[in-house]
Amino acid sequence: MAERFANRRDIKFLLEEVFDVEALTKYEYYQDHSLETFDMIIDTAWKMGTDLCYPFLQEMDKNPPRYEDGQAKVHPAVRTFLDEIGQGGWINADWEYASGGQQLPNMIKFVYGFLFMGANYSMGAYQLLTCGAANIMNTFASEDLKSKYLAKLCSAEWQGTMALTEPDVGSSLGDLTSSAEETGQGYYLIKGKKIFISAADTDACENTVHMMLARIKGAPKGVKGISLFVVPKYRLEGDRLVYNDISCDGIEHKLGYKGSPIGQLTMGENNDCRGYLVGEPGRGLGYMFHMMNEERINVGIGAIGKATAAYYASLEYASQRCQGRKPTEKDPLAPMIPIIEHADIKRMLLMQKSIVEGGLAICLQVAKYQDLAKVSPLPEDREKYALLVDLLVPVVKTFPSEAGIISTSAAIQCLGGYGFCQDFPVEQHFRDIRIDPIHEGTTGIQGQDLLGKKISMKNGKALDLFFEEISRTLQNSQGIRDLQPLADQLIEALNELVRVTKHLKELAAQGKTEEFLADAVLYLEMFSLITVAWQWLLQAITAQKALNQQTGMLESDYLFYQGKLFACRYFFSYELNKIYGLERRLMSVDYPTVAMDAKFFQAFA
Amino acid sequence: MAERFANRRDIKFLLEEVFDVEALTKYEYYQDHSLETFDMIIDTAWKMGTDLCYPFLQEMDKNPPRYEDGQAKVHPAVRTFLDEIGQGGWINADWEYASGGQQLPNMIKFVYGFLFMGANYSMGAYQLLTCGAANIMNTFASEDLKSKYLAKLCSAEWQGTMALTEPDVGSSLGDLTSSAEETGQGYYLIKGKKIFISAADTDACENTVHMMLARIKGAPKGVKGISLFVVPKYRLEGDRLVYNDISCDGIEHKLGYKGSPIGQLTMGENNDCRGYLVGEPGRGLGYMFHMMNEERINVGIGAIGKATAAYYASLEYASQRCQGRKPTEKDPLAPMIPIIEHADIKRMLLMQKSIVEGGLAICLQVAKYQDLAKVSPLPEDREKYALLVDLLVPVVKTFPSEAGIISTSAAIQCLGGYGFCQDFPVEQHFRDIRIDPIHEGTTGIQGQDLLGKKISMKNGKALDLFFEEISRTLQNSQGIRDLQPLADQLIEALNELVRVTKHLKELAAQGKTEEFLADAVLYLEMFSLITVAWQWLLQAITAQKALNQQTGMLESDYLFYQGKLFACRYFFSYELNKIYGLERRLMSVDYPTVAMDAKFFQAFA
Repeated sequence: MAERFANRRDIKFLLEEVFDVEALTKYEYYQDHSLETFDMIIDTAWKMGTDLCYPFLQEMDKNPPRYEDGQAKVHPAVRTFLDEIGQGGWINADWEYASGGQQLPNMIKFVYGFLFMGANYSMGAYQLLTCGAANIMNTFASEDLKSKYLAKLCSAEWQGTMALTEPDVGSSLGDLTSSAEETGQGYYLIKGKKIFISAADTDACENTVHMMLARIKGAPKGVKGISLFVVPKYRLEGDRLVYNDISCDGIEHKLGYKGSPIGQLTMGENNDCRGYLVGEPGRGLGYMFHMMNEERINVGIGAIGKATAAYYASLEYASQRCQGRKPTEKDPLAPMIPIIEHADIKRMLLMQKSIVEGGLAICLQVAKYQDLAKVSPLPEDREKYALLVDLLVPVVKTFPSEAGIISTSAAIQCLGGYGFCQDFPVEQHFRDIRIDPIHEGTTGIQGQDLLGKKISMKNGKALDLFFEEISRTLQNSQGIRDLQPLADQLIEALNELVRVTKHLKELAAQGKTEEFLADAVLYLEMFSLITVAWQWLLQAITAQKALNQQTGMLESDYLFYQGKLFACRYFFSYELNKIYGLERRLMSVDYPTVAMDAKFFQAFA
Repeated sequence: MAERFANRRDIKFLLEEVFDVEALTKYEYYQDHSLETFDMIIDTAWKMGTDLCYPFLQEMDKNPPRYEDGQAKVHPAVRTFLDEIGQGGWINADWEYASGGQQLPNMIKFVYGFLFMGANYSMGAYQLLTCGAANIMNTFASEDLKSKYLAKLCSAEWQGTMALTEPDVGSSLGDLTSSAEETGQGYYLIKGKKIFISAADTDACENTVHMMLARIKGAPKGVKGISLFVVPKYRLEGDRLVYNDISCDGIEHKLGYKGSPIGQLTMGENNDCRGYLVGEPGRGLGYMFHMMNEERINVGIGAIGKATAAYYASLEYASQRCQGRKPTEKDPLAPMIPIIEHADIKRMLLMQKSIVEGGLAICLQVAKYQDLAKVSPLPEDREKYALLVDLLVPVVKTFPSEAGIISTSAAIQCLGGYGFCQDFPVEQHFRDIRIDPIHEGTTGIQGQDLLGKKISMKNGKALDLFFEEISRTLQNSQGIRDLQPLADQLIEALNELVRVTKHLKELAAQGKTEEFLADAVLYLEMFSLITVAWQWLLQAITAQKALNQQTGMLESDYLFYQGKLFACRYFFSYELNKIYGLERRLMSVDYPTVAMDAKFFQAFA
């Protein structure tokens, strides 16, 4: 195992120096907190990640859940972790005091999610799924439902899930067919099948509570006919837990993310699966999507967690492994050097560093917007920050997921043949991260969301606000001479983005809807590169200012800030420049992916 | 399992229509062959791939070799395959008649390697490794050694390996330490350890013959002290096989490529491991590298095989799976459409198609150069083709390996959640292909080879010849109106390549060796994109001419040629344009990967 899966110093830098998390404590909602309480929470999470998650990373991968006697049997370490989670109040720490929460900022909540998932993604996912289910219940369910189910979810005694996908319905949720029949007795009878449900069933908990989408009989077809139900594995009848006729039919054998049981469910085989309606009929998808931002940010955070762990494993290896010599070394008998001294290895490490630290930055930036959207006194500020969150969620979901594949692949490459072997954890991170461009809305869905919806919402107001945010960073860079070339490069990139956006919106205006959306994924990639470049400039400003101002700086701080400046330079030169390839494609007026007849793929004889 | 792992029509197109394999039969060496014999061979290979390899793809992955009683126990299907391989003369079909071969062109040999490895990479690898060992023995070993070992290797009764890597020596082969002590009795005593040896040990064969690098005691340090030995597991003493004191100490547990035992060897624990010198002392690395082109092309071919199989699995799924509707469809109740109709899915299929068919094309192009280098009557022609092979080997090794990761990842994405599950083969291809940027020289090594050596060899003659070859294709495109924009785009790209190459060579001339080589991998990527774009233009010319000329064309031919034209358009617009991002980086005069102090990565507190 590698020595570390994350960098405490980087978390401190982002929270305190870049995003000034302390400023949040000036708002009434967060007033009981301080840098010290944040620090304590993160230290505790670090310790939990180190002691309860990380040691089981490979073990849970090699011993995935077994499906026996109709139940998924998971690694016993899961229960230990969930006990701590429940006792520590980690499930609902962001909720208000009145709901049993600690009014913790999202920024801090995402950091501990990052630590749990980075230490062991499968382990961290159990907590997150329960969080998601508890959140949606807390926001939309009746007091009666909340009184029955919330406490057990928040104590992590019961596992929560989000049950959306069906055998024939994945991305196209409006078509789902699981049914709910009104009984007039306070519940509905649910029938149907669900697949790919994370933590669908587990013997780590005495009960599993599914937040499930189904269609009430007689409801309109399409999206508007979908309602949300609480469907527990064991329902509460008085004080008793009664089996609720929902069976786990099996669990998937997967590429990665193996420690968590992803399963299939059948509801109502004996006509006795009771579902309890959440909120109003027909609004299920809306409720789910209310929570979707949170879930999607969590995917991004988890992906960054995995890629970060892979990065540190490869950094450790590259620092210790000696191989070859500098190309300028003429003596073939000179001692071999640590491979980190080779430019190409340093390139792969800088690539990873710039992706994982830039990715974490944008996640925390959006978390800060979420916090400000919640507590800003002025309604226009709350709207502003909420719009920025909505705009950036596709980026925060996708950049870590997609760049994370490349980043973990580079981690493997740094280790050479050892990277391909299970003795080192990098191959697992490469497998574990591959789920992220798929679940909670594929990359394709994210692209459609950004280009098809977010760019134009409120007459493009979110995009304007985004440009304003970047402008502020550009202003802050003025006077820092070394950063001017980077600021200029970012301005040039923004101009390209404006040009491409205008071109695409013209297609939409001309009614060329397919052409408009055909390359949405490439647009999202271009948008993401610019967003992360902005986050790198922000970090470089902070680092350069620190280097300029501080005298008697700690050696480790000096090294840290220098590392930030180099990673920023790397990102601008090697990653941001990719937009010039993307821009050529996005400005093209030839649309082979629209024009091509699907039959042209089919010629084998 | 998917219905197909390759496309017979595409093989025919490339061999016959694009590369005119029949023209080879005009040379004396190949005169006994004809299109018919080539066809028969490929049909047989197709059947072997289908019957002997493909059915065991997932089974061999799920039941990898076990290490028991000091031996690797492999899947019994391996023996069945090797029996056919041996009986059919597939190991040495390219050798001359006098050596027991069939004087088969490399073009055909690579096609059958492509089929075996595409159907089941681990299975195909057994054959290739024996091929490599037999080739090197046939070229450099004494008649005595050949008479003892070659027949058994060529009949696939004995397994061959290439034993280079040691625990402390991977990319830096000049530093290897395994030793050989002259005994004066016709053999050397070998001592040392080897790791990551493919097919290091197997119970599928009665013997394993290692082509092993070691250092004769007293030999100079560095590259010049390395010699090549035949080191069998069981040595021949008269008619008896005697254990040769070489033990397999274990096998690796790996990300993919699981069906093949990759193992560690210890030689000479009882001071009785005999190695038989091949050729002259001190020339071992040279001999190995003589075969390296072959091995590296095989890595490329294997990668394309895997990515091709993943492509067809995702194509099959995308053609059958219905989900969602066109963005122009306003009726949410309209029937769902096959996902292949969505532009973003078509984009991911076109990406795969353009990578795998473009990748196979460049592999066969280089195979053709190899064949012409062998049989061209004029020495200057032989030199020309040999130079083109040398220049393009880094491309043929790396483009399939690196783009293949992206391509197999896109295959997973086309299947959504199913792509992440072991029920479908795509996740395995994604794992299996990850070895390819590592073995037989990492991508970093390939970049150094192209930029540091191949570009400048013979005063840049290879590069000039390469440009001439592309010019010829550009000339052939004249008069085909629809292809003019693509030809123009390729010319522009070539100009960029010339500009970047000039810039980098100036760095070298200024003695800035580290800066010159720092981005060799990016240079290789740019070079590869242009090379594959050229191969796509070549295919598009052939397809467009066929469409223009033929009347009464078969429907399937029409579909096939149209598919080629669209894949070409896709590649130029989506892939070739990436060079404009690369070019910006490569022309930069800021070198963060050289300038950054490795310490700057190390700041955690």
